Amino acid sequence: MLLPEKAKIIEVGPRDGFQNLEEFIPTDVKLEVVDRMVSAGFKKIQVTSFVHPKAIPQMKDAKEVAKAAVEKYKDVEFVALVPNFHGAKAAYEAGIGEVSCVISASEAHNKANIRRTVEESLLELEKIRSEFKTLKIKLDIATAFGCPFDGKVPVENVIAMMDRAYGMGIDGVCLCDTIGVANPAQVDEVLKAVKAAYQDKEIGLHMHDTRGMALANIVVALQNGFNLFEAAAGGLGGCPFAPGAAGNVASEDLVNMLEEMGVSTGVDLEKAVGVARLIKEKIKPELTGHMVNVCNC
Amino acid sequence: MLLPEKAKIIEVGPRDGFQNLEEFIPTDVKLEVVDRMVSAGFKKIQVTSFVHPKAIPQMKDAKEVAKAAVEKYKDVEFVALVPNFHGAKAAYEAGIGEVSCVISASEAHNKANIRRTVEESLLELEKIRSEFKTLKIKLDIATAFGCPFDGKVPVENVIAMMDRAYGMGIDGVCLCDTIGVANPAQVDEVLKAVKAAYQDKEIGLHMHDTRGMALANIVVALQNGFNLFEAAAGGLGGCPFAPGAAGNVASEDLVNMLEEMGVSTGVDLEKAVGVARLIKEKIKPELTGHMVNVCNC
Repeated sequence: MLLPEKAKIIEVGPRDGFQNLEEFIPTDVKLEVVDRMVSAGFKKIQVTSFVHPKAIPQMKDAKEVAKAAVEKYKDVEFVALVPNFHGAKAAYEAGIGEVSCVISASEAHNKANIRRTVEESLLELEKIRSEFKTLKIKLDIATAFGCPFDGKVPVENVIAMMDRAYGMGIDGVCLCDTIGVANPAQVDEVLKAVKAAYQDKEIGLHMHDTRGMALANIVVALQNGFNLFEAAAGGLGGCPFAPGAAGNVASEDLVNMLEEMGVSTGVDLEKAVGVARLIKEKIKPELTGHMVNVCNC
Repeated sequence: MLLPEKAKIIEVGPRDGFQNLEEFIPTDVKLEVVDRMVSAGFKKIQVTSFVHPKAIPQMKDAKEVAKAAVEKYKDVEFVALVPNFHGAKAAYEAGIGEVSCVISASEAHNKANIRRTVEESLLELEKIRSEFKTLKIKLDIATAFGCPFDGKVPVENVIAMMDRAYGMGIDGVCLCDTIGVANPAQVDEVLKAVKAAYQDKEIGLHMHDTRGMALANIVVALQNGFNLFEAAAGGLGGCPFAPGAAGNVASEDLVNMLEEMGVSTGVDLEKAVGVARLIKEKIKPELTGHMVNVCNC
């Protein structure tokens, strides 16, 4: 099997993982988790979200978390998710070097998620781009593989959105399977089309494990030469209304699979499992990741 | 992606799934589960194990379960696992048409699992074969992808065991990732070697999801033309000492992925999820399968 030699994992647990947890995680515990992630070898961490505290109270300490992380670790890239211009400004002022802006590939999901049309979101993205010249901006294309309202999403919609993003000078794109419906045959088809359109761009993948297919989809991505993946410690994230349902692909599960396959990640597996164990002990006792629950027998 | 048009799933929940559960499941509940599996469209079910009741008390009603299932459903194949000649005889007498005999590809695991050397196990298999001419006999090669004691298992060992099995007239072989350590690159390598040796044989795969790689491994198997998979409702099975650890690949997760990929299974997804829900309600509240816990949001 022809595989990339290396892969890069963006650890999104502190944002995508924590944002849905109801009980507020003290800032120092959040930073302890970040410390452990850095020590495990993660070089890029989505550390918080600059969103209105009324919308997501868990992220009300975005500024403190971002500032502390950025000041402490000069050789780690810290990313923040921002829903709008206001968020991007706050992230920029906190010293964040890269922001993720989310726009859905399906109109219905974008409306439900950010209460805007896709066009309005793209215009806001353009405004962020033109105001913050030195900020790295990544577009997260949500529901790129399927929408809870609109069903299957045509790959043409995804590519059209990439055209717009690259056209306005966005630095990177991440294709998100927001609700974990992508299947490996579909991922193969979508990635082949995306690669045909944008051969030289580094395009990330953000796969949820809702239906258990995240790692299978990532294998197909590797076969297609993709090697940039977002993941969350312990498999955090996903839907808060289904306690047993899986969230993001677990970082330590991904590290284990990639390293076992001979794809180098730069992350220490044992320490990555340690991050998930810390989260299990201090933040969320029931995690859907595999390695954190694994039996040695 | 080139995929088989169809795949066959052998539902092993009533044996591999139930055998590790401590509390005895009443015979009528076991049979209710089998009823629901049949109604979901499963055409082959590993229904019980003819093992000494002191070794696995859960299977003490093997005879009743097997007889009831065989008599009720003439168009479904019922398989029983048997650890030895005595078990094969009991299965045969109960009307079972096919038995699974387990031998590990690694010496240490075979000793730990059946207290025999691999050679002793092979001689017992030969004895079963020569005594029961009309019984379909399948060899389950345990630890085919890795052993908890011996580590990686050379594919030569697996093929040597297949040589012996086919040489004595065994009807089928199933390669088992007993402890869920196989990774997709390894599966690709092993299956290519196995296929080169036995091109025309129908070879099954029994993948555990311990480290979350079961579906990824199955995708690679599909890419190599394999299409016979064992799975257990709800993801039952695995290690009883790690409650959060995943067991077998969940049948309904597998049905979902295969059908989404356009590989026909003959199983009704909704009804397969229904089987897992029944097990969740009546037998084991916490299941590691995905579809049974999925969130519709």
